[in-house]
Amino acid sequence: MIKAGVVGATGYAGAELVRLLAGHPDALPTILTSRQFAGIRFDTVYPAMAGEVGLTCESLSVERLIENCDVVFTALPHKIPMTIVPELVAGGTKVVDLSADFRFSEAEQYEAHYQQHTARDLLEKAVYGLCEVYREAVQGTVLVGNPGCYPTSALLPLVPLLKSGMLEVGSIVVDSKSGVSGAGRSLSISSHFCEADESFKAYKVATHRHNPEIDAILSREAGRPVSVTFVPHLVPMARGMFTTIYAVSQGKLSMEEVRNCLSSYYEGRRFVRIVGPARVPDTRHVRGTNYCDIGFTLDEPRGRLILMSAIDNLVKGAAGQAVQNMNIMFGLDETAGLTNVPFPV
Amino acid sequence: MIKAGVVGATGYAGAELVRLLAGHPDALPTILTSRQFAGIRFDTVYPAMAGEVGLTCESLSVERLIENCDVVFTALPHKIPMTIVPELVAGGTKVVDLSADFRFSEAEQYEAHYQQHTARDLLEKAVYGLCEVYREAVQGTVLVGNPGCYPTSALLPLVPLLKSGMLEVGSIVVDSKSGVSGAGRSLSISSHFCEADESFKAYKVATHRHNPEIDAILSREAGRPVSVTFVPHLVPMARGMFTTIYAVSQGKLSMEEVRNCLSSYYEGRRFVRIVGPARVPDTRHVRGTNYCDIGFTLDEPRGRLILMSAIDNLVKGAAGQAVQNMNIMFGLDETAGLTNVPFPV
Amino acid sequence: MIKAGVVGATGYAGAELVRLLAGHPDALPTILTSRQFAGIRFDTVYPAMAGEVGLTCESLSVERLIENCDVVFTALPHKIPMTIVPELVAGGTKVVDLSADFRFSEAEQYEAHYQQHTARDLLEKAVYGLCEVYREAVQGTVLVGNPGCYPTSALLPLVPLLKSGMLEVGSIVVDSKSGVSGAGRSLSISSHFCEADESFKAYKVATHRHNPEIDAILSREAGRPVSVTFVPHLVPMARGMFTTIYAVSQGKLSMEEVRNCLSSYYEGRRFVRIVGPARVPDTRHVRGTNYCDIGFTLDEPRGRLILMSAIDNLVKGAAGQAVQNMNIMFGLDETAGLTNVPFPV
Amino acid sequence: MIKAGVVGATGYAGAELVRLLAGHPDALPTILTSRQFAGIRFDTVYPAMAGEVGLTCESLSVERLIENCDVVFTALPHKIPMTIVPELVAGGTKVVDLSADFRFSEAEQYEAHYQQHTARDLLEKAVYGLCEVYREAVQGTVLVGNPGCYPTSALLPLVPLLKSGMLEVGSIVVDSKSGVSGAGRSLSISSHFCEADESFKAYKVATHRHNPEIDAILSREAGRPVSVTFVPHLVPMARGMFTTIYAVSQGKLSMEEVRNCLSSYYEGRRFVRIVGPARVPDTRHVRGTNYCDIGFTLDEPRGRLILMSAIDNLVKGAAGQAVQNMNIMFGLDETAGLTNVPFPV
Repeated sequence: MIKAGVVGATGYAGAELVRLLAGHPDALPTILTSRQFAGIRFDTVYPAMAGEVGLTCESLSVERLIENCDVVFTALPHKIPMTIVPELVAGGTKVVDLSADFRFSEAEQYEAHYQQHTARDLLEKAVYGLCEVYREAVQGTVLVGNPGCYPTSALLPLVPLLKSGMLEVGSIVVDSKSGVSGAGRSLSISSHFCEADESFKAYKVATHRHNPEIDAILSREAGRPVSVTFVPHLVPMARGMFTTIYAVSQGKLSMEEVRNCLSSYYEGRRFVRIVGPARVPDTRHVRGTNYCDIGFTLDEPRGRLILMSAIDNLVKGAAGQAVQNMNIMFGLDETAGLTNVPFPV
Repeated sequence: MIKAGVVGATGYAGAELVRLLAGHPDALPTILTSRQFAGIRFDTVYPAMAGEVGLTCESLSVERLIENCDVVFTALPHKIPMTIVPELVAGGTKVVDLSADFRFSEAEQYEAHYQQHTARDLLEKAVYGLCEVYREAVQGTVLVGNPGCYPTSALLPLVPLLKSGMLEVGSIVVDSKSGVSGAGRSLSISSHFCEADESFKAYKVATHRHNPEIDAILSREAGRPVSVTFVPHLVPMARGMFTTIYAVSQGKLSMEEVRNCLSSYYEGRRFVRIVGPARVPDTRHVRGTNYCDIGFTLDEPRGRLILMSAIDNLVKGAAGQAVQNMNIMFGLDETAGLTNVPFPV
Repeated sequence: MIKAGVVGATGYAGAELVRLLAGHPDALPTILTSRQFAGIRFDTVYPAMAGEVGLTCESLSVERLIENCDVVFTALPHKIPMTIVPELVAGGTKVVDLSADFRFSEAEQYEAHYQQHTARDLLEKAVYGLCEVYREAVQGTVLVGNPGCYPTSALLPLVPLLKSGMLEVGSIVVDSKSGVSGAGRSLSISSHFCEADESFKAYKVATHRHNPEIDAILSREAGRPVSVTFVPHLVPMARGMFTTIYAVSQGKLSMEEVRNCLSSYYEGRRFVRIVGPARVPDTRHVRGTNYCDIGFTLDEPRGRLILMSAIDNLVKGAAGQAVQNMNIMFGLDETAGLTNVPFPV
Repeated sequence: MIKAGVVGATGYAGAELVRLLAGHPDALPTILTSRQFAGIRFDTVYPAMAGEVGLTCESLSVERLIENCDVVFTALPHKIPMTIVPELVAGGTKVVDLSADFRFSEAEQYEAHYQQHTARDLLEKAVYGLCEVYREAVQGTVLVGNPGCYPTSALLPLVPLLKSGMLEVGSIVVDSKSGVSGAGRSLSISSHFCEADESFKAYKVATHRHNPEIDAILSREAGRPVSVTFVPHLVPMARGMFTTIYAVSQGKLSMEEVRNCLSSYYEGRRFVRIVGPARVPDTRHVRGTNYCDIGFTLDEPRGRLILMSAIDNLVKGAAGQAVQNMNIMFGLDETAGLTNVPFPV
């Protein structure tokens, strides 16, 4: 059994990691840390877990993590992970970091949007853990920068088509819609029930930090600079992310070509389901699962391709992809622990 | 008092008309028709209305409408209104039709997306009732084609900027999100609680009939053909519509120029609130009201303008705008009966 | 015009007061106080109110309230109002207090459940503002203790039947269900969207402070001690309160007797709608209104009467009843400013 | 592997059975029947299941069920199962029936509330499948009448205390609240999104057919007639059921005694979690799981015990308990296939 630590276990991404690890056939959670709830049983914070997880939250101790964990998931706000990951890696522990700290290969990119990077030498070791695109690199690494939820939902549909040269790189618009759990468990007026319920709104319009993350990976895959317009929105539901992507096609495209491009790229990858053009993705269909459903339609009169994706922001958009990365790093079947059957409703 | 009839009074748009007319200082509902509930009191179908509206639904009789109404609102699926509106108009009744039947000035446009038009001669009399754009024409007419909800939400932000030549006409993408009431009161699996709750999805991708309606009005205002890519989505809430619009700017635009363009166009028009760039619209802020909140942001690195609007799909997107049209047609203050104060939550 | 101040204007009950006062034909808000948002425009805190309310929130100044207000609504947590109400009343201002501070006629009762009462001499002047029961007393007073939301929903159905001796006083169980807005605008984990959404739970089981308030009024009306079992629950919706009441009937009761008792007690009182037994109340039917819908059924085999009520917790359960009290105190029609037509959906 | 058939696989209970069987380590679905969707792939009706279940729905054929199934789950409206279950049982197939047809041991009871029973001789063979109470009987049977959702939520807290003589049998009130999925997938105005959303209401007040089912089992366990007042309500959420039970205690009870009674009765039964009095159950904590969380509080001044339970109406209230019954009938660990870890949010 792989012994796994979760740093920041009582946030929503952390708690979802605990859920997945508690049900994993080849791994088990050994250390859960929480600044706010140190000394308190995890199932007191999340009573749903009574009878499932008996651990007590503890304060962060890198030493204890190294001693008791084969792998550590750091589910903390950016800036903190880069202060502890170097020690963890030096101590022989593998790390999947769910913050932005190890997602950029160039420190400059990170620093332009976040702050000074204090573990620059680790950046070249770190692998961007978009499993269906970078599996081979993940296999050989000890440190994964786990992708953001919005980038995951935008990149999975876009990468194959962009790589195939089917899209005009300057024409891409990404319109994303996220459930409220994406804003985390920290209290805020915009996540207050009466403010979020029966409300739909945009936020951080064209200024969200996931925009440069999307651009960096698209540019890498396209082999030239790509920069998209990105607007995130908040949906009155707990889980789920839907992304609609608009791009002008390079020359005339057929539905068949689009389907082939996506299908062949994701052949054999269980978590990507190509559902179009007969059907449109729906966040409900992927809730609680590691699936990414991808749909597409051509707006022929206007020469645009419309791509759509649906993921669960806490699973494929965070904890599920993190466990998938762990699976790959440890040579397990990448679906291990991620095969719970979706709810019909 | 203006005597008003509502044909199709038990659908959601019809019932919202009844709500607004029951609270109108200068009008009152006199005839409510309903195929399904003829002979049943309106407040049996909508118990919220007990003590507010004492009328009994009746079968459609054009004769009775002409006798008892100064104005008739037809809130029916398209195709039916064009069979009764000619008689109503001939009988001296003013008409606000909430279907698509009288929204297109050219029969060919209508017929390309709906079916044969059987009241073609009325099309030149009919005025497209987008009140803030066509008030003068509405003042003099006896027949208004009340705009669709999506077109209202897309046109109000776009018209001033397009008219000013600030946007590249071929670059426009309209991404709309609607509450479930937009699908009406007819039972369907996609409006079934357990299917719509905690779900976000697109539908009729680039094939919705509001697309040609948007294109027709934009083309008229721009003075040349405009054709947008349009994708509607379904949000798990009852009321509200949010539209995000992406367009490449003609040359370099400043926030100041955008604000001035919108503010001067809508000066003195109470129902349009320009909220950007400091703030972003939110469907919650307009719920139950006739407001259209408009926001905007420039994505300068990519040369795109992002426009956002929020309306209540049943009010400004349907019944509210219909009452506003009635007010204009009858020479009343256009805000009469539409001034209920919004709920804070 | 009656000049009205709202102390604590940015909480949910306070903001709802502002909504109702802004639309009131005979009153207008003159002073809005807020500790947290002093110096900030009210419509910045509640953008829905842009174009409706132009006031800026200010710090609490009893002097300014006395100078500028004919009536002051204090929408603050208990304990604070009793420190300012004496001055306000002494200054000639009428007061409607929405906290518990002036709801009990006996200081001992208050002190048993809250804390020491520091304005005991005002208690005999204060009137419990359950408008349909104590209208006459309200007419002559300068200080109203506005009822809690749960007590309002429990007392309106119970008082007539208890007064008529139809119920066994020891047998009453009150099972209430409230929307999340009842918990206010203060951030808390139980009002956090992802915790409240798709969740139903009880809280403060048999220990809620509204229990003694219910008991006190029932005892007064029954003329002997009455003590009910009371359990509140939280419903995943913003507004609305539904209360189900179970009581053993004194002897055999008929539906007819129950209906007559309720109908005659509430004859001529517009805000109480007796809907049973044909129909069951629904919070949706009273949303945004000052209505209290009352239903009832006899469980004959078991000799129990089941009463049900639906109110909007922020309107009849708080701000609406407060305005109704103001109307009565100032000799206006008690429905003034409270006649907005309910939404059909 | 146990081969399992699901009759009525496309209703919500049926689809939930498919979910559980698809993830079961020792069983697999072999035949799915659906009147409405015969000939259509199950994952076309429930696209969430793409990649999980490859079966195509077929018309009901008892012969095919007998040939291909070791066990058949009948998830149909009452009245239909009694026409096919006799053949299935005669053909050697074990049956778990989710309707009311085999829940009553006396045909007279069934016929008083439903209609004539046409398979009376099977009633004495049938076992009421409340697993934690009747496990031994279930072990030896070929036919289980799977309990209703409301009865499950009421009986699990009540049975131990009633059996111990701690409650006055005439004093019991059961106030239940259910998510909308309890009303099934059939379209109806009360399950229409815009009518159920932001709405709370009672229905079938003291006339629901689960009332006699509760009474029958309580009477059997108490050894004398017990008859409760029962009122179900509808909560604006998809899944979950919360039941609050009020009963006068026999003499003075302590929290300790209540806890001991419940804990000892359910010792070793994983799916019952006694959470009180420190904590209150919450439907969110059991969503998607087979757990029944039970809480309790004493209202000492009034001599009442308050019991609370939370279940997922589709799992412990239907499909989960059905699979648990299958596990017991086939000698498997009763938790097999029911151990998915709950979601933290």
